[in-house]
Amino acid sequence: MAKTEMTKRDKEVSDKLQNVGTEILKQVNKGEGPTYQLPVRTLNNVFFDQKSKTIKLGDKMSQRQFLNVAHSRKFMQTILVAAEIRKVIDEQATVSIRDLYYALKHTIAGTDENTFEEQGESDPVIEDIEASLDLLREELHLAASAKGIIAGDLKIKDGKDMIDLTKMGSGGWSVPSNVEPDKLEIKDLDAEYVLFIEKEAVWRRFNEDQYWKKEKCIILTGKGQPGRGERRLAQRLSKEHKLPIYVLTDADPWGMYIYSVIKQGSISLSYSEEKLATPDAKFLGLTTMDVEKFKIPKEVTIKLNAEDTGRLKEMSAYEWFKNKEWQKEFQNMKDKNYKLELEALSRKGIRFITETYVPEKIKNKDFLP
Amino acid sequence: MAKTEMTKRDKEVSDKLQNVGTEILKQVNKGEGPTYQLPVRTLNNVFFDQKSKTIKLGDKMSQRQFLNVAHSRKFMQTILVAAEIRKVIDEQATVSIRDLYYALKHTIAGTDENTFEEQGESDPVIEDIEASLDLLREELHLAASAKGIIAGDLKIKDGKDMIDLTKMGSGGWSVPSNVEPDKLEIKDLDAEYVLFIEKEAVWRRFNEDQYWKKEKCIILTGKGQPGRGERRLAQRLSKEHKLPIYVLTDADPWGMYIYSVIKQGSISLSYSEEKLATPDAKFLGLTTMDVEKFKIPKEVTIKLNAEDTGRLKEMSAYEWFKNKEWQKEFQNMKDKNYKLELEALSRKGIRFITETYVPEKIKNKDFLP
Repeated sequence: MAKTEMTKRDKEVSDKLQNVGTEILKQVNKGEGPTYQLPVRTLNNVFFDQKSKTIKLGDKMSQRQFLNVAHSRKFMQTILVAAEIRKVIDEQATVSIRDLYYALKHTIAGTDENTFEEQGESDPVIEDIEASLDLLREELHLAASAKGIIAGDLKIKDGKDMIDLTKMGSGGWSVPSNVEPDKLEIKDLDAEYVLFIEKEAVWRRFNEDQYWKKEKCIILTGKGQPGRGERRLAQRLSKEHKLPIYVLTDADPWGMYIYSVIKQGSISLSYSEEKLATPDAKFLGLTTMDVEKFKIPKEVTIKLNAEDTGRLKEMSAYEWFKNKEWQKEFQNMKDKNYKLELEALSRKGIRFITETYVPEKIKNKDFLP
Repeated sequence: MAKTEMTKRDKEVSDKLQNVGTEILKQVNKGEGPTYQLPVRTLNNVFFDQKSKTIKLGDKMSQRQFLNVAHSRKFMQTILVAAEIRKVIDEQATVSIRDLYYALKHTIAGTDENTFEEQGESDPVIEDIEASLDLLREELHLAASAKGIIAGDLKIKDGKDMIDLTKMGSGGWSVPSNVEPDKLEIKDLDAEYVLFIEKEAVWRRFNEDQYWKKEKCIILTGKGQPGRGERRLAQRLSKEHKLPIYVLTDADPWGMYIYSVIKQGSISLSYSEEKLATPDAKFLGLTTMDVEKFKIPKEVTIKLNAEDTGRLKEMSAYEWFKNKEWQKEFQNMKDKNYKLELEALSRKGIRFITETYVPEKIKNKDFLP
């Protein structure tokens, strides 16, 4: 097929990758052992940055040396991955990280050694390149798994297509993995906030009731722990368009952790979180405090198990949860010894969640920080 | 919100549900112990129907009697579920099966007994109602989890929205769980076949290359084992619009089982398979026979593990796989002792799958039945 023209950003990224090779070539020509510098990505170099309010990678660096036997395999892999990514960008394609692994897997001529034995070897090398060049995976034309759905009063310009998110019927638009500004333009936005919903089934309830139309908002789900696309899209709606982001999850440590990742980011992606996290997001619910507030019958709550209590304890100790509002909620969950799911609200009526619960929480600004 | 008007089908379904209650009331008025008849859903009442070429439920029936202590809890649950579903239809809503469970969970007045203890109790009752009234879950306004994505040259009329599936950008339209004709109308279809792709990442590759435009087809993925929505949509495109359905999965027992479910259906949904399965579907690939045909390097194949070999043996014994073509492929997989993933084709080039592999298979009609 005809290749589309490279964007300015693609050219910059391609140049950065070429530079990796050029630098190494320089070292070789000078008679030096080739060395590649990269940030340390272990826990002791990860911190919560008070300024950006996101999880971030510190400035500890390490070196990968070709002439060090312990490094040479990884070194070879790093160069292979960087070269292949540059090829993918130049061909104006996008591939999955599994494609990349297979594309590069081969037996090195004259040996019985494979370049990669499993995808577990190529994935960390990709992360090294992202972190060392300060590039998003999407800018490297690597697709993450995409599972989110969105609807609401906005249009999205994606290539030649203008997609009207008010006209998606019962299905919704499937959020792609790359939502970077040079790929997706947000147009004709007429919404007052974003409702970021943990569960797809609950999103369907809001979509069926055309909640986004009635309440002038955007409804977005990441189906569980959201993917990069949904998180980056929420960040763009927050930062570029100043929309409040309200997160709606189960009242359990897992739902609240999903909120935490949307807001502050995760340790494993610390090197990209400034570009993925949405520090202005607010937690709408569900909370265990809502049980009494909304007179939810006890029968639909679920007793905490050992895993829940363990996770709850860990969460209470997170720096960003050390405010009195969250500590109060965690304490209440522990004291009452229950959690509850969003679907439990159905006990109060089919449309209780769309017609009463969420609108009241928003009206009363009853959020957790 | 304003309720939309009930469709003719909704009225029929609502009446069928009311009938359940009316019949029981008649029995009570006659002084009989209330009894509810339903088909046996165990394996010994499931068979492969040579006429419809789908897995089907046989005609063995069982009785659920209110005055039998062993049945009375289930009897009560059946009536509760039937009544709640009727309410959901009358309110013109759609709910998830988890919503339904929570909506009905309560402590019976004057006792400490709950109507349902867990969703594992309400789900089989829903299946009983589907099977005994010969209704699809979607007709009962119950939403299954939906995860599929579609793009191609057709329009879908969904409520008031006309959705143009040629203009979905890199995202695609998210397939809803209910794709019944009274809900979704297929319009302006201009395609020659449907490519039903197991993996979302591979679907993205085809979508990025606008394969559907070049090859005049529809591309659909169910992200692994497809949901009811994707399967029913494939059936509609096959039966109503006479499009060939080509299935593209990994060359392993799991991918081939996904094909089997698309084509013949599954045992667990035997009571609905005539409405979900697509007996005319054909298996495009990947096969282990393709390795030599397309000169795929051995490095990207994966050795079979014990689970694979066990599953392979089971599959070879399935009635519908007992043709020489499939037996040959199973034998080859066993002899070569390898499987391979769709992404392994990336070893032959980024666009090998979209520009060479699939077009050649289709041109040569190189399918398995």
